[in-house]
Amino acid sequence: MSKKNNFRRYNPLIDEWIIVAVNRINRPWQGAKTEKSTGGNVEKSSEKNQLAPGGVRSSGVVNEEYTSTFVFENDFPSFTEFEDCAGEEEDSDLFKQKEVRGVCKVICYHPDSQLTLAIMNLEEVRTVIDIWNQQYVELNPKYEWVQIFENRGAVVGCSNMHPHGQLWASNYLPSIPQKKHESQKKYFEKNRKVLLLDYLDQEMTKNERNIMRNEHWTWLVPYWAFWPFETMLLPNRHVERFTDLNETEKQSLSSILRALLIKYDNLFECSFPYMMGWSGAPTGSFLSEDCSFWQLHLSFFPPLLRSATVPKFLAGYEVFAEKQRDISPEIAAKTLREIDGEHYSKRK
Amino acid sequence: MSKKNNFRRYNPLIDEWIIVAVNRINRPWQGAKTEKSTGGNVEKSSEKNQLAPGGVRSSGVVNEEYTSTFVFENDFPSFTEFEDCAGEEEDSDLFKQKEVRGVCKVICYHPDSQLTLAIMNLEEVRTVIDIWNQQYVELNPKYEWVQIFENRGAVVGCSNMHPHGQLWASNYLPSIPQKKHESQKKYFEKNRKVLLLDYLDQEMTKNERNIMRNEHWTWLVPYWAFWPFETMLLPNRHVERFTDLNETEKQSLSSILRALLIKYDNLFECSFPYMMGWSGAPTGSFLSEDCSFWQLHLSFFPPLLRSATVPKFLAGYEVFAEKQRDISPEIAAKTLREIDGEHYSKRK
Ligand SMILES: O=P(O)(O)O[C@H]1O[C@H](CO)[C@@H](O)[C@H](O)[C@H]1O
Ligand SMILES: O=P(O)(O)O[C@H]1O[C@H](CO)[C@@H](O)[C@H](O)[C@H]1O
Repeated sequence: MSKKNNFRRYNPLIDEWIIVAVNRINRPWQGAKTEKSTGGNVEKSSEKNQLAPGGVRSSGVVNEEYTSTFVFENDFPSFTEFEDCAGEEEDSDLFKQKEVRGVCKVICYHPDSQLTLAIMNLEEVRTVIDIWNQQYVELNPKYEWVQIFENRGAVVGCSNMHPHGQLWASNYLPSIPQKKHESQKKYFEKNRKVLLLDYLDQEMTKNERNIMRNEHWTWLVPYWAFWPFETMLLPNRHVERFTDLNETEKQSLSSILRALLIKYDNLFECSFPYMMGWSGAPTGSFLSEDCSFWQLHLSFFPPLLRSATVPKFLAGYEVFAEKQRDISPEIAAKTLREIDGEHYSKRK
Repeated sequence: MSKKNNFRRYNPLIDEWIIVAVNRINRPWQGAKTEKSTGGNVEKSSEKNQLAPGGVRSSGVVNEEYTSTFVFENDFPSFTEFEDCAGEEEDSDLFKQKEVRGVCKVICYHPDSQLTLAIMNLEEVRTVIDIWNQQYVELNPKYEWVQIFENRGAVVGCSNMHPHGQLWASNYLPSIPQKKHESQKKYFEKNRKVLLLDYLDQEMTKNERNIMRNEHWTWLVPYWAFWPFETMLLPNRHVERFTDLNETEKQSLSSILRALLIKYDNLFECSFPYMMGWSGAPTGSFLSEDCSFWQLHLSFFPPLLRSATVPKFLAGYEVFAEKQRDISPEIAAKTLREIDGEHYSKRK
């Protein structure tokens, strides 16, 4: 497969950047077709899933017979370190294009294609937390931003149901973390407090949108949530980056993560689809800057609205004017709070 | 149906507003289920489509036996003029909520549920343009922003396949037009030129991303497009608002609009799903301000990527870090340019 350089282009009308990644168009597709499924259906054929141990990937590479977690470089990456067509940058007010470099990886959580984070045991969830940490330790010095995320379920564009997430690391700070950086910085300069910690404090007093809490973590629906059951998981103390978490906090994370994913699965009694992503202080050259205004957080943007089959769409009004949600964040929080803590599959 | 006040809430982490519209959760749903269809499948049962002439809407109201276009107020609106619970505004740094007022309408394009804008005749398309104009004339003085848009196809969350669009008008300028307002203003102050007209000029010289042009309009793929086949339709002369279009331009709009929608349908030989939306200078109190830096434009954000059944998803990386596209805007433009101009259904 030939690797081309990728670019970011600037949208001067709404002051936003877009990545143009022309390597990816031929990647294999086992996800949503017209006949879309939001459930966790996994290949039933005799051929091995591409992400499973021994699976043959589209690049021809055969996965090792892994027994725990497994990380490999994406065969259709949006970012590469390969440079073969320099000089295509543009820099006028209306035509602005920058070359981008980076790396994209796939993180398999478990050898068993039938599992999900919600139904793994605690030790297995903990191995995923450890592999995230290991990736950050390795990549933080090299890249300005390391995005670890998971697209779970065909309804959010996941092209393979094997339990896995992704990591995209880049030589620049992307648009959304850039905004978070500025907002948290401004807030700190004005209030001498960390935005998300101050927010967490106030939410604990208001007691309306918090769902679950243990000694080290709090799970809540943000006041400003857009997705119907959007939530955020926050460390209770000030933590800038994932790599700053101590052993106890990581252990505690595995139990609250599993517990919250069980609640999500129980909501509509399905393997709950979501976009999940970590955000913490930027890395690379930012490691030598003061980023103490940052607070680590894990966001969940699940699309389902009314049942396992009716999602919320980011549609016309949302993309041309403003995002709009159909249930209040308070009702979403109450619903999640009251839901059973035992996985529905075990109850039947 | 009880009408409650609706609100906008502020996201301090990424400096963005979200509408909380709690009236809408119980609206009827004929769109995407788990078994998703991107085609134009219309109710085949003996019951009349809710949007058709004589159709019974969920409010119990029966539609008149209309023979051309037909406009009515949305039974599950995000904005209403009804005020019954004032005083719930909040205004701290972290908890900011404003009450919003407005109106939401449904605009039926034609009595026949089997038609689409692409396969109507020119006179029929022209009636849609006239009804858009009539709505703007009526609502511009009352509202700061009048958003006319269409969600077409189940894949973009359209809950009914009858040919129709929507109009949401509000007493404030929403986030995205607000950004467009600022960007165009800044550009004008710096360059003494209208951003989108200057851009159009340069695109005509570059001749890489323009697809179709007639005397009054140009259809092109923006340099910064995100959606795989995202395009923009621009008047060739300076036009601030839809209501500034003259008769000839409106006539010319009906032919280029139909021609471009036929190309879209021919791309994957399906009734092409899209989000379509008009943007022009804001209205209401802005009518007495200088908005001459604005240029009217019609945007198309279609989700399909590789076939009638494989969409592009705005997924994890896009929502947590930055938007990413998989084919270059230049290839998208070339593909659309070379596609046949006769509707595929007529060729068979
Ligand atoms: O009003 P409709 O067509 O039922 O709903 C559709 O369009 C709205 C406006 O873009 C979106 O908020 C909804 O998510 C979408 O399903
Ligand atoms: O890389 P995948 O899983 O094939 O692709 C998925 O995630 C990407 C990153 O969020 C998105 O750009 C794609 O639209 C989505 O289908």
